[in-house]
Order: sequence, then structure tokens, then C-alpha cells
Amino acid sequence: MSERTTAPAGLPDPPPLDTDPHAPGDLAAFKNAFRRHAAGVSVVTALDVQGKPVGFTATSLASMSAVPPLATFNMAKSASSWPAINETERVVIHLLGLRNRTLAERLAGPNTERFVGDHWRVGPYGLPVLNNVTSWMVGHIVERVTVHNSAVVVVQIEGGGLGDDDEALIYHERRYRALGETL
Amino acid sequence: MSERTTAPAGLPDPPPLDTDPHAPGDLAAFKNAFRRHAAGVSVVTALDVQGKPVGFTATSLASMSAVPPLATFNMAKSASSWPAINETERVVIHLLGLRNRTLAERLAGPNTERFVGDHWRVGPYGLPVLNNVTSWMVGHIVERVTVHNSAVVVVQIEGGGLGDDDEALIYHERRYRALGETL
Repeated sequence: MSERTTAPAGLPDPPPLDTDPHAPGDLAAFKNAFRRHAAGVSVVTALDVQGKPVGFTATSLASMSAVPPLATFNMAKSASSWPAINETERVVIHLLGLRNRTLAERLAGPNTERFVGDHWRVGPYGLPVLNNVTSWMVGHIVERVTVHNSAVVVVQIEGGGLGDDDEALIYHERRYRALGETL
Repeated sequence: MSERTTAPAGLPDPPPLDTDPHAPGDLAAFKNAFRRHAAGVSVVTALDVQGKPVGFTATSLASMSAVPPLATFNMAKSASSWPAINETERVVIHLLGLRNRTLAERLAGPNTERFVGDHWRVGPYGLPVLNNVTSWMVGHIVERVTVHNSAVVVVQIEGGGLGDDDEALIYHERRYRALGETL
């Protein structure tokens, strides 16, 4: 196995990060690693302070605990949906199947066009719920933790619904993928 | 499309959660949804206060930002590795490929046997680095956010290395899977 090491292979410690927090080494290591990471595709929706729907496609959704039911997602504070997520009490988290690939692309596209059409409905608390997803959950935000220009959002799930089953939609190396064989 | 709704389909609001935080509705919604979620497989390692290696298989790894390079993972505070993660400064995050399936199982097995063998080496800062993974990153913990009995850990990546390439290892419905066709 060949290893291309971008960090020191041992002691002594590298220079303190605060002298050069964006050094090429750390960014290259991060990009090289996450290029090989695969993730399920979800969409988070909410209402902004004017009551208009906002939402975005996320690959950072993760389970945090089952009792109580907690989930997390990450987002950039520069995202068009961040002001709404930062102000609102509740969100809807949708899990996407293979049939939802165009939905994933739409909710990752121009933010003024994400809710133009009949691909969503008004759900609990008046929140936008996307149609024909494999499952969705509504919950309230219990923590927003900002680090530099990004945020981790922790959501406690209150309820949800199931759509028709489908294979999970996966995102890997900037492409949408299906699942393959069981090992 | 049939929808089995486990939350009220509209107003009025459900009872406040603090009267029954573990009501079947919310847990069922959570489990039903995450049953359909697929995730890449990673392993987090660290040193405990005695300097012994600890680690665990995680499916919650997510990218948080690229500049600076930040990643998150979630864990239960009841996990055997939590005391170490709670005390230590740095961790190693490994991304796993198909060839690492037994490694994923080993790091999810009995915690006294996770580092018995020659499947790891001493890496930067004396941290345990698993051999033959597709990539690994070393970083320092910048936030630990605990909610109920779980924690979100935010890591700033400092460096890392690449192993031989491989297809990403996926976990879905309690099974390990390969990736399938590109859509």
C-alpha cells in the first residue's frame, strides 16, 4: 500500500494552526478524504420569517440518538436558507430515494425556483413537505452550533411520514449513485 | 403514493413534548426514516488518558466546511470511547473502502479486542492510524456539543494520508453495501 502523507509522520508537532489556518496540507487532506466519502441524500425545508418556504439538499444528515430521537445536519452560514434556519423553530427533514434525483437537483439549484411547482405541499405547522419522498420527519431545533462560517444543527424529531419504498439515493464524487451489492 | 402519517397532518399543535418526550410517534418516525438512510462508513480513533488506543466505527461522519476544513461525527456518551474523546485533544478519522469491511466490524465489536493485531500503527501525535484504509485525516477537536446522552464532535483537520483507492463502503439497513450504478 502506498501512502501519500500530507501531515508530519510523527513528532515534532507542526506549526500552530493559528499562524496558518488554511495551509494547503490540511485542505488537501480534507478534500482527498471526503472525495472518497459517500453519503445519503436528504432535503431540509423550513419557513422563513415571512412564512415563505426555503430548503436545500444536504448530504450531512446523521442520526445522533434514538431516545430521544435526534438528528444533525451541517450547513454553511452563507447558504440562502441559513437566515431562515437560524430564526425558525422547526424543520422538515426528507430522505430521498432513486426516484427523487430530480428533486435533489432542484433543491440544490437556484433558490428562487426551489418551490415553484407542485412537488410540495403544506404539512404540519404549515411547513413545506416534499411529495413522493421515501420518508420525512418534522422536528424542532434544539441546538445550533456555529464554528467559523458553518453550523451544526441538532433537531429533535416529533413525527413524520413514510412514502413508497425505494432504493436510497447516494451522493459520491459529485455524482448521484444507487446502492449495489450487499456484502 | 400512500402516506402513513405519524404526526398530525396540520394544526393544532401536538401536546408539548416535555409531557411525553419519548412518545411512540416521534420514535417511530425517526426509526422509519433512518431505516431508509444510507451512509458511508468511517472509524474514529484516539488515545485515552492512559495513552491506550480507543476507536469506533461511525456512520455519522459529515463534512462541515472546507475552509477551514471541518468535519463532524456523532456518538453516544455511553460508548466505550466517549471518556477518551471527551478528554483528548486530537482524533484520527478514517474512511473505509470495500476491502475494509472486516475492519469496520472489528472496530464495532468488543472494545477490548479492537486494537489487538497488526491492523494499525502509531501515527502523528502518537495516535493510532488504521492500515490499508482509503484515506485518513488527523485533526483537533474544536467543539463537543452534548444533547441529552449524545454528543456532536467538531474536528478541524490538520493533515492526513491516502491509501490505495477502493469503492466506498456503505451501511444501510444494518448491512454493508457497495455502491451501484451512476445515475
